Amino acid sequence: MIHGVEKRLVASLPAGMVVTDPDIMGSFVHDEAEWAPFGKPVAVVRPKTTADVAEVVRACATTGTPLVTRGAGTGLSGGANAVDGCVVLSTELMTAIKTIDPANQIAVVEPGVINDDLRRAVAERGLWYPPDPASYQISTIGGNVATNAGGLCCLKYGVTRDYVLALEVVLASGKVVRLGSPTNKNSAGYDLRALMVGSEGTLGVVTEVTLRLRPLPAGPPITVVGFFDTLTAAGDAVAAVTASGVIPLALELLDRYCLRAVEEWKRMELDLDAAVLLLAQVDTPGAAGEEEAATVQRCFEAAGATEAMRSDDEETAEALFAARRLAYPALERLGPLLTEDVCVPRTRVTKMLEAIEAAGTRHGVTIANIAHAGDGNLHPLFVVPAGDDDARRRAQAAFDDIIAAAIELGGTVSGEHGIGLLKRAGLAAQVGPDVLELYRAVKMALDPAGILNPGKIV
Amino acid sequence: MIHGVEKRLVASLPAGMVVTDPDIMGSFVHDEAEWAPFGKPVAVVRPKTTADVAEVVRACATTGTPLVTRGAGTGLSGGANAVDGCVVLSTELMTAIKTIDPANQIAVVEPGVINDDLRRAVAERGLWYPPDPASYQISTIGGNVATNAGGLCCLKYGVTRDYVLALEVVLASGKVVRLGSPTNKNSAGYDLRALMVGSEGTLGVVTEVTLRLRPLPAGPPITVVGFFDTLTAAGDAVAAVTASGVIPLALELLDRYCLRAVEEWKRMELDLDAAVLLLAQVDTPGAAGEEEAATVQRCFEAAGATEAMRSDDEETAEALFAARRLAYPALERLGPLLTEDVCVPRTRVTKMLEAIEAAGTRHGVTIANIAHAGDGNLHPLFVVPAGDDDARRRAQAAFDDIIAAAIELGGTVSGEHGIGLLKRAGLAAQVGPDVLELYRAVKMALDPAGILNPGKIV
Repeated sequence: MIHGVEKRLVASLPAGMVVTDPDIMGSFVHDEAEWAPFGKPVAVVRPKTTADVAEVVRACATTGTPLVTRGAGTGLSGGANAVDGCVVLSTELMTAIKTIDPANQIAVVEPGVINDDLRRAVAERGLWYPPDPASYQISTIGGNVATNAGGLCCLKYGVTRDYVLALEVVLASGKVVRLGSPTNKNSAGYDLRALMVGSEGTLGVVTEVTLRLRPLPAGPPITVVGFFDTLTAAGDAVAAVTASGVIPLALELLDRYCLRAVEEWKRMELDLDAAVLLLAQVDTPGAAGEEEAATVQRCFEAAGATEAMRSDDEETAEALFAARRLAYPALERLGPLLTEDVCVPRTRVTKMLEAIEAAGTRHGVTIANIAHAGDGNLHPLFVVPAGDDDARRRAQAAFDDIIAAAIELGGTVSGEHGIGLLKRAGLAAQVGPDVLELYRAVKMALDPAGILNPGKIV
Repeated sequence: MIHGVEKRLVASLPAGMVVTDPDIMGSFVHDEAEWAPFGKPVAVVRPKTTADVAEVVRACATTGTPLVTRGAGTGLSGGANAVDGCVVLSTELMTAIKTIDPANQIAVVEPGVINDDLRRAVAERGLWYPPDPASYQISTIGGNVATNAGGLCCLKYGVTRDYVLALEVVLASGKVVRLGSPTNKNSAGYDLRALMVGSEGTLGVVTEVTLRLRPLPAGPPITVVGFFDTLTAAGDAVAAVTASGVIPLALELLDRYCLRAVEEWKRMELDLDAAVLLLAQVDTPGAAGEEEAATVQRCFEAAGATEAMRSDDEETAEALFAARRLAYPALERLGPLLTEDVCVPRTRVTKMLEAIEAAGTRHGVTIANIAHAGDGNLHPLFVVPAGDDDARRRAQAAFDDIIAAAIELGGTVSGEHGIGLLKRAGLAAQVGPDVLELYRAVKMALDPAGILNPGKIV
């Protein structure tokens, strides 16, 4: 179905915007989901404007060429992986922060803006963009929108979708539309803005994002740390915090495998005796925050923490959260990683952790755990030595068991990474055939020729 | 296209569930949007279970009968108005609160549950359901979901969509699906949950709602009151509060027409000298909350309040917020009301208030204003004596001017009431033909025969 889309793109777009050199294209063909398959594009395009993007979409539409849009490629489900014969559209040159409006607490940005660049730019104006995926230093707002990225702070402050007020989108037809409204509320028409968020480039190409911001927090949060001998005790502590009525800024879990991998890499003098570390942060100002921190500490103790303490040393607290953020890359050093992203009702975190442990034992696989435990969002991680096919098969079996357990517990196969390629079977099992049929109907309504990121989600 | 749908319904549903008596049906044919047209149904059905609803939808699908779903009928845009020959489905008997789960902070309810009944039931378990439309004492959760209802607290705590985790929906085909996930986060598949919220019964019939709850606030909020001589000064005060970084629980505006109407009705000894009253509430606990209240008061003073004070008298504060909630019915006593629901970026509240005043002057119409001012969401209200056709024409002209001004200011035609019948032209002007075409494509994908609430939104 390819009829010289590269030729058309080279002819219609500014010089240098279209890459067809296979060596260069090689770095645009997949995201960080090591296990997901990817194909060979015919061209990589790096547009600078909405008009460029519209031209790319029209060229693909005219020639029936699949179009795969990517941000920084930090995704963990293969959502940005190339398919054979596709055009890859990289948003890396669309990095303008067009507006920061402190009076209305909004920002308008291009999709290629790095999350952390936005974060720093708005902080200078006294504002805060809460969604903070662990990849925030390298991932883009467009990618965050595509996967409805979460992060550590979403326990208290919500996920990417909660911060997207409006979008400019190039549709599969090449038409450019604006969805949503820059206002604080909007009940006008169907919420295609929300539909577009998390749709992984399968319904349109986002070219501009209007984001809600919050005032910058007045002071640093209080950190409470708990060490536990068992995953079960840590899971019970999480349930106790939720039941206490305190909503921490973040409530994170790291198991011994993660702690060890970080320590081996960075030598942070982490305590390696504990089975599990829980990290909580509380940001309510003043005495109320002090009380909340004390409540969290009591919850940790009551659940059987071997040690629970409030960290009054900001440096240590920061180091612990840095360790949390380094856990993924630290494990990645040990071999190709397979990552899950299941999310269960919060009272079932303990049961889910037990199911993960059981799946590891059953299949003889070591599974490391990092988790946004307060949200019930767990990231079991499988390290498999490159080339060890048997280990890979066993890891896949454990992966499948964990997906099944999450669904059984009333959970979802993705809390924040999206479906991409790796979780399509899980999604189908979770939502069932009637909802899949609805997804297909919506996809057909917005992209009847199926050119936008084909094979992802549905 | 009607082929005895009543007969089928009477035959297939339990005795008494299907009403065809024209007198009784008369109270199910329209909502509170006095100006919106409505037609004559062939039957009103009051199902009790999801299976009943599915049977109603199948009967309508088979016979090509339009189906109009309604909650309590408190809508203000005609979204629940009957069309000729339709079946009206009233959710009034689906009032079960199925689950209140304090440990996971969720509730599962049927659509006919009254907002305030839910509010009180969850409060007994230490929980809070924040969305509080002015109609909360009589409107249903299903209706709140259909319009993505807002309220006073949504300035700080978000709107209905932010609290809907999952839905059970009967599709136009009669199939029953579950959308969303009861988990705190979910990035699996297209967000049809968010799409369904605010779709005014045009994409499916909601039969169960899983709601996010919050812990009940520890203490009462602090109320700050400001009196202003001009709408402009009050608008400036609103902008100043937003710019200060304080996020009040609520920031409401009432003008002199509203104050007078409430006073004439309820004799609350309201101060009738001021042109505008601003009511703010701050709920941050402890000293931080005290500081926020002081900041709000300073913002009021700096914008030129004739009087600004913190109300230390809880009874007075409650009475003022009661006056706010009574403003709509108080004005309704004076004649049929036409209500707007425009929402603009918060810095443009002053300009929007001025445009409203100018439209009133231009067309010789008295326009009362209540507003969720902190959100930029304004409710200009037109009282028109019944039978005065000339006054009605002038009010309609002012209404149209205000819609145009809101769009010109970058706003939306509906902050929280939805489109229904009254704002269809405004919606078309706001979003443009390409987005309308998308709406139609989505409607066609989910309801190809167009039986669900035809003529609403699109």
